[in-house]
Amino acid sequence: VTVSELGERRLLARIRARLGVTDRGSQRNARVRVPDLPTAGLVIGIGDDAAVISPNRNAQTVLTTDAQIEGVHFERRFSPARDIGYRALAVNLSDLAAMGARPRWALLSLALPDTLLVDEVEGIVDGLSELAEKHRVVVVGGNVSRSPGPLMIDVTAVGEVRPRRVLTRAGATAGDELFVSGTIGGAAAGLEMLKKAVEGPGVSPACTARYLRPQPRVRLGMAVAQARAARAAIDLSDGLGDAVHQVADASGCGVDVDASALPIETSARTWWEAEGRDPVTAALTGGDDYELLVAVPRAWAARLKHVQSRVTNPPLTKIGVFTKDPSARVLVRNGTRETLPGGFEYWRT
Amino acid sequence: VTVSELGERRLLARIRARLGVTDRGSQRNARVRVPDLPTAGLVIGIGDDAAVISPNRNAQTVLTTDAQIEGVHFERRFSPARDIGYRALAVNLSDLAAMGARPRWALLSLALPDTLLVDEVEGIVDGLSELAEKHRVVVVGGNVSRSPGPLMIDVTAVGEVRPRRVLTRAGATAGDELFVSGTIGGAAAGLEMLKKAVEGPGVSPACTARYLRPQPRVRLGMAVAQARAARAAIDLSDGLGDAVHQVADASGCGVDVDASALPIETSARTWWEAEGRDPVTAALTGGDDYELLVAVPRAWAARLKHVQSRVTNPPLTKIGVFTKDPSARVLVRNGTRETLPGGFEYWRT
Repeated sequence: VTVSELGERRLLARIRARLGVTDRGSQRNARVRVPDLPTAGLVIGIGDDAAVISPNRNAQTVLTTDAQIEGVHFERRFSPARDIGYRALAVNLSDLAAMGARPRWALLSLALPDTLLVDEVEGIVDGLSELAEKHRVVVVGGNVSRSPGPLMIDVTAVGEVRPRRVLTRAGATAGDELFVSGTIGGAAAGLEMLKKAVEGPGVSPACTARYLRPQPRVRLGMAVAQARAARAAIDLSDGLGDAVHQVADASGCGVDVDASALPIETSARTWWEAEGRDPVTAALTGGDDYELLVAVPRAWAARLKHVQSRVTNPPLTKIGVFTKDPSARVLVRNGTRETLPGGFEYWRT
Repeated sequence: VTVSELGERRLLARIRARLGVTDRGSQRNARVRVPDLPTAGLVIGIGDDAAVISPNRNAQTVLTTDAQIEGVHFERRFSPARDIGYRALAVNLSDLAAMGARPRWALLSLALPDTLLVDEVEGIVDGLSELAEKHRVVVVGGNVSRSPGPLMIDVTAVGEVRPRRVLTRAGATAGDELFVSGTIGGAAAGLEMLKKAVEGPGVSPACTARYLRPQPRVRLGMAVAQARAARAAIDLSDGLGDAVHQVADASGCGVDVDASALPIETSARTWWEAEGRDPVTAALTGGDDYELLVAVPRAWAARLKHVQSRVTNPPLTKIGVFTKDPSARVLVRNGTRETLPGGFEYWRT
């Protein structure tokens, strides 16, 4: 059955049931597993004109919004519905992680083509709900509209951070070292694999999973902020190269990135080498990694070690150092100094 | 020049300049009038991974999101860009008003077709910014994406309300009187006029303006909440009939609405009568009014009078009373009792 056949009212009721609704007007649907919601601070959830929450004392509120659009960020032919929903929240939680914030609440705005199956909508909601539960995020509101074109999912995520603990892009100074979490390039290679619809030994589920289900580095971001272990942070939504340029721009620094230190996902490297492409450039310019990049003064190394002892996964890798001349954005490779790619004009995301 | 020709970076810079950016990284564009922003409570605005704000002490946070989609909520052939932007914020501020909240912050997520002119984007941002300034709302973040289909504008609005002052849909009890603000039906008639592209003496700018530039009843909602003058409130996004049913559903009440009391916009009535249609049904089922409906116990009449002395525009009109039997949703007309229209299944919004 399609969404237009079901009608808006019944569709909304199904969505609410899956999100574990807390408003008075609706009943829980016993056939659906309802998440066990952390309702502390929730005053009014889904079902009224707006949601109402009580901010924690001594916390600032962190707000971000990001959309996933069919044909731009995903395609239904290779992204399962659950993964589309998972990803729609993940990219927002990644932004909160980059600020060092604890995610608390989310709003979900869906624009649905008339012919979309209700099953697909439920899959999207379930995937989003799965990640929400993992990070104890409660979906408190949203909106459902028709779309005369692509499927669109717009999520607003709300988090909290203690004053003066928030991580911005602008704090790095010359001498600070750059660390990146996890591995890079996997998601970009995975998306290429999915687009080419290739199968066989060359294709890595490790890469495709990185694209389909990004893992926002929520615990790491919070631990870094809590320990004051970094002077600047950003998440890698548009690639490591772009992220380094963004922090350098906002902080007024130059940068030396060491090509040999980059933690390129092994199966992504294999994929690109088989295609005759340079894995370093591909990994630096490929998007969708959703790892964190942090700038850490040498004197704070012990704090970072403490963070890594608390949050061991993903590991942090030192990949370079910020420098004085803001115009010098350098990739050091085999002893030669190249221009760091990534800060180009693009029309994407 | 189109958005894809300009490129994402430069487009973002233009949008930020128009919104009166507060982040460190960017310069104000001297050619553009930058709004004078109320920055109290703003910690980090547009330009980082997320925005950071300081909630007021003793306030709860109110969150809402609503999308405007080309071909569903507006059409570019008859909605000027400025009005599209104005409307995208207005529908969200109306939701905050219905909770009695003071609007504070907004996030703007745009999905833009490649061929859209940059002028149009600037118009949308300027229209949104105009209404934001009027209500001292600051746009603190957002997102710009490509759209392979229609233009979409998703706004998240954040407000504040004092605990126990918030207005919900669920508080009405039998005997409470229903009041609606302003006039109804104007926006629906205005949209019909625009769609038919008619011109001449039958067309009323009063109606088309109601559709193109809805005025969210922010001051009225805040005054009602502050004075505790209503037990329930809702805004009329999907028509008065629907709104009455929603409050009755959430409150477990029935309702008698007096057809002769409905404040139908005069030129809408004229329009529908000329078309041979029943103005009462058209006004009850027509959407986009964005007035407020409030449920007021008789004993609180003095409080409501106090509110009306403070906020004289729009006036409030008594249109009916809530009753005991939840299944009795009645329109009283010429002494006969009809079923109140509006609570039907639809696939709209």
